[in-house]
Amino acid sequence: MKNKLVLALLATTLAGSALAQVKPDDAIKYRQSGYAFMAWNMGRIKMNVEGNYNKDEVIKAANAIQAIANSGMGALYLPGTDKGTGWEKTRAKSNIWTDKEQLGKVAMEFNKEANEMAKVAQTGDAAAVGAQLGKLGGTCKGCHDDFKAKR
Amino acid sequence: MKNKLVLALLATTLAGSALAQVKPDDAIKYRQSGYAFMAWNMGRIKMNVEGNYNKDEVIKAANAIQAIANSGMGALYLPGTDKGTGWEKTRAKSNIWTDKEQLGKVAMEFNKEANEMAKVAQTGDAAAVGAQLGKLGGTCKGCHDDFKAKR
Repeated sequence: MKNKLVLALLATTLAGSALAQVKPDDAIKYRQSGYAFMAWNMGRIKMNVEGNYNKDEVIKAANAIQAIANSGMGALYLPGTDKGTGWEKTRAKSNIWTDKEQLGKVAMEFNKEANEMAKVAQTGDAAAVGAQLGKLGGTCKGCHDDFKAKR
Repeated sequence: MKNKLVLALLATTLAGSALAQVKPDDAIKYRQSGYAFMAWNMGRIKMNVEGNYNKDEVIKAANAIQAIANSGMGALYLPGTDKGTGWEKTRAKSNIWTDKEQLGKVAMEFNKEANEMAKVAQTGDAAAVGAQLGKLGGTCKGCHDDFKAKR
């Protein structure tokens, strides 16, 4: 009876976090995809701030970044996926799986600034969007400095 | 004076659609990333419907799909990018740039079902989510059948 309960809890955890059926190299591909798609949208916001500002385009870009940031990409960091090849060889550093405290900190900062970016985009205020883009970009860089290997 | 106006309008269009500064192979990489990230989230929703249902995870997944679907990925289909390599060689068929009517139709259906998916996810009704996932997946397949080359 107790074993059954443990198994049921385990099944819930695995299914709930969608870890069970994703292959390691697919997990790497999916996380590389999320970051690359956000990079496109960061670039679009930058171009709008520096060029002719299109409020609607910035909102779309900020919403995409926000939804990806909040999608739970942590589930894609399966144990052992500091090695492996998705679209390309992963550059995830192994301290992602050990330095939980610092990882939690930078992940939380990133989410906070991504949520704020989506709010600021709604104002259509190009200067405020530019300032928030700087803050958001800083959280990307902060995480890369700690947890992403250089080429 | 008239030429200046034309140039100004052109500049607005290019900057507004963010076409100007994205390189063709980057555009291909970004669109492959968007589709791959949506594929992860479609898979997550499927796993939840078929396994232990986690309402919060399905909402996150549906929101990511919705925001990517509405992000304006059409801007990534630069002229000439039926050839080229992003993460891998593009499988975009050249009729994307010619069969505007059918493309508009399938794109609109996809957006509609992605928006509906995000709404249905909020209900937490696994059966309704499963049914909507089928509709959404149908719009993916419909577009692939028409506009994506087989491997």
